[in-house]
Amino acid sequence: MKFRLVARVLALLSSMISIFMLWPLSWAIMDGSTDAKAFVMSIAVGFMVALLLYGWGKRGNFQDLGIREAFAVVTLSWVTASIIGALPYFFHGTAPTFTDAFFEAMSGFTTTGASILTNIEAQPRGILFWRDLTHWLGGMGIIVLSLAILPFVGVGGMELYKAEVPGPIPEKMTPRIQQTALLLWGVYVFLSALQTVLLLFGGMDLFDSLTHTFGTMATGGFSPKNTSVAHYNSAYIDWVITIFMFLAGCNFALHYHFLKGKWNAWWKDGEFRVYFFISLGCTVAITALLLIKDIYSNVFDALRYAAFQVVSIITTTGFVTADYELWPVFTQLLLLILMFIGGCAGSTGGGIKNLRIMVLVRHAYAELFRLLHPKAIVHTKVAGRTISKEIVGSITAFFLLYIGIFTLASLVMTALGLDIVSAISSVAATLGNIGPGLALVGPTKNYALIPNIGKWVLSFCMLLGRLELYTVLILFVPATWKR
Amino acid sequence: MKFRLVARVLALLSSMISIFMLWPLSWAIMDGSTDAKAFVMSIAVGFMVALLLYGWGKRGNFQDLGIREAFAVVTLSWVTASIIGALPYFFHGTAPTFTDAFFEAMSGFTTTGASILTNIEAQPRGILFWRDLTHWLGGMGIIVLSLAILPFVGVGGMELYKAEVPGPIPEKMTPRIQQTALLLWGVYVFLSALQTVLLLFGGMDLFDSLTHTFGTMATGGFSPKNTSVAHYNSAYIDWVITIFMFLAGCNFALHYHFLKGKWNAWWKDGEFRVYFFISLGCTVAITALLLIKDIYSNVFDALRYAAFQVVSIITTTGFVTADYELWPVFTQLLLLILMFIGGCAGSTGGGIKNLRIMVLVRHAYAELFRLLHPKAIVHTKVAGRTISKEIVGSITAFFLLYIGIFTLASLVMTALGLDIVSAISSVAATLGNIGPGLALVGPTKNYALIPNIGKWVLSFCMLLGRLELYTVLILFVPATWKR
Repeated sequence: MKFRLVARVLALLSSMISIFMLWPLSWAIMDGSTDAKAFVMSIAVGFMVALLLYGWGKRGNFQDLGIREAFAVVTLSWVTASIIGALPYFFHGTAPTFTDAFFEAMSGFTTTGASILTNIEAQPRGILFWRDLTHWLGGMGIIVLSLAILPFVGVGGMELYKAEVPGPIPEKMTPRIQQTALLLWGVYVFLSALQTVLLLFGGMDLFDSLTHTFGTMATGGFSPKNTSVAHYNSAYIDWVITIFMFLAGCNFALHYHFLKGKWNAWWKDGEFRVYFFISLGCTVAITALLLIKDIYSNVFDALRYAAFQVVSIITTTGFVTADYELWPVFTQLLLLILMFIGGCAGSTGGGIKNLRIMVLVRHAYAELFRLLHPKAIVHTKVAGRTISKEIVGSITAFFLLYIGIFTLASLVMTALGLDIVSAISSVAATLGNIGPGLALVGPTKNYALIPNIGKWVLSFCMLLGRLELYTVLILFVPATWKR
Repeated sequence: MKFRLVARVLALLSSMISIFMLWPLSWAIMDGSTDAKAFVMSIAVGFMVALLLYGWGKRGNFQDLGIREAFAVVTLSWVTASIIGALPYFFHGTAPTFTDAFFEAMSGFTTTGASILTNIEAQPRGILFWRDLTHWLGGMGIIVLSLAILPFVGVGGMELYKAEVPGPIPEKMTPRIQQTALLLWGVYVFLSALQTVLLLFGGMDLFDSLTHTFGTMATGGFSPKNTSVAHYNSAYIDWVITIFMFLAGCNFALHYHFLKGKWNAWWKDGEFRVYFFISLGCTVAITALLLIKDIYSNVFDALRYAAFQVVSIITTTGFVTADYELWPVFTQLLLLILMFIGGCAGSTGGGIKNLRIMVLVRHAYAELFRLLHPKAIVHTKVAGRTISKEIVGSITAFFLLYIGIFTLASLVMTALGLDIVSAISSVAATLGNIGPGLALVGPTKNYALIPNIGKWVLSFCMLLGRLELYTVLILFVPATWKR
């Protein structure tokens, strides 16, 4: 492991985080609020860390970064960003302890949206802007990770996306990552600008438009309002956010191809269709149930709230327009299951991802078929992509790890005193990068009451889920650290 | 599909079930109780069904039964047994509806032990004896299925057990099944006799000794007492049952080899060791927690109740000596997780089985290793058995189906109005063939309050879980039915 080369990358990252803090600082200065001091201090610390890492680090060719260094860089990037990103919350007193501050920052950069804040609106705008900016930056990182890096190192079946990476594919890794990143960030920034404008049209001010856009495009879910998007009580705003959450849960490579003029790019993609039909099916089912149970009296309201909550959960955003704990138990369990499915690979969404679910379903059926025809050789295609046995093995292992981590972390949460529903939903909601869960961490509540150890466990779940498990877990395999 | 050959097998089974009913009938006659009439009627109907099936069926060579017929025979055997086995409950009025009677009978033959009876002790001894006899017969069926049939048709990785099947392995399937069945039944009957004698020593009368032995050896869990084994409040009885439940959860081929003089047969088996250490580890953890939380004041009591409940759940028996819902939430979730693990393959226990869990854990770790060494060819051995890629594929598919069915059935249960914990635990407890779950179906409650549709869904879960999913699911694949 080339530690000192890794340090240089982290130095670059630390200074970038500090530079981005100038944006919330400018809100703070404009408002003349007390958080300005916290940001100045945080920026100073950030640059100091950057200098220290740079000084200790060694000059080297970034193209020398091997696969083990790549995993370390990615995981440590999120951890470093969260440590520095936690400083404003800590210095300003937003979070009572560093544990809470770190939880909030990790929740931001992993685009989870689980909060320890009990009164969000009591916070100054600089802090609130920073929360959503961490989402947006985290989302940028994820797009690059899932479309420009992971497909080429073969994590959890992401090899499947190799063919779709936009732009030319050069021999060396680093120039390719840069190429791809720039193209996809263009799409990300374009969609963000579009949503901001549409929200401004809906009567939101610039601050609210920007923060909600950041929370949407990154499938994050932090809102500057106590009651989340329900605050605005506007059908227009609900639908705009529903549509943009849905887009953020799609493979961004599809958006790129669409914007390049391939109008059928979305529909031609098998994963998109499954993602679309799951979202649609669940929305229709919940709408019907909400009408039958007379929770909403007219179909437009029922559809609006059902669609928002289904899309918010499956994309792993976590915005809220209705207290779904007042809905029938069936809808609650359905939403809990959607937390595991998540968005499409190559999106900013978390969870297991639709394509993986498709491969898993196909694999289970293929085994059933093999019992009848043991000698048959089946060539499997899923969503138009040829699935080798290696990829199936990789994806089943990913699923096993996901369920295994979910189970162990839930056990730990019950050991800390949580009831079963709170325990499993808090883990599902952090591992899947959603945010709100059920019971103690339900849509009208927050993570403030979770014991400190639990906050660290859940922070680790956010990191694991966000980095496709393997990227983090591999750092716990001793062989990774051998020189 | 050779329907009329299948019918002949089912005719044989129906008459066997009727013959076995003579045993509870004799208790009823001895007691002069009203259930005698119900048994006479049931026996008559059983023989009539046998005659009809025999008459419609066609003479043929049972060795002509292909793989598709084998699956149909096995699944339909359990269904037919449950229909005929439900008659005494229905005729005597033990169950208010046929749905309830069928649920109770399916719960018996699948060795689940989930009951719809609210006052067990109000039932005559004939009925109570029948409940446990269905367990014991179901257990016999399972031993043969899991050690003499499934290893040779390759269901869910059971190929792994081929080498262990005791006795000579002849070319043809039918004589081998007979050979193996007789040897294993010998072990089963021997252990049953031993346990009965030990329970008699503990002060139980013959009736209670026999019924509890049947419930133990089959890992069933029906008790003729309202408070299950807690009724006796005897440390001796608790420990005898704990030990025999543990033995019933072991691979019966190991018992055979042990009794033939291979004293290290158990310990040499890697699956046995994992099963042993999981049971031990959970027992120690729960004992410690029960002492810390002051639920029991001395270590012997805490150990006795913890060991009993851990072994009862992991072996999927479902006997109860303590209301574990009064224990810390952590222990409840731990027990819920043990429901998924289950016993060893080749035992009468249900669940996913320890060997499969071992293969799954190994597979997840191997993928992590493969990221670092993409070119390495890893030969995997698990518990001394060589694991091919086909077997890993088969076992991961089994796990996916298990989780998929668990998820869908839980959703259905919430749609019927159950809360989340009741829904997931009722499905886990029936799919894993345990019996009691949590909340509405907790250890001091029963399944009487489950809506009718729910009883059918859970009955189907029992059948699926008991027959290793594939045996049943394959009947829903159209290709199975082509002539």
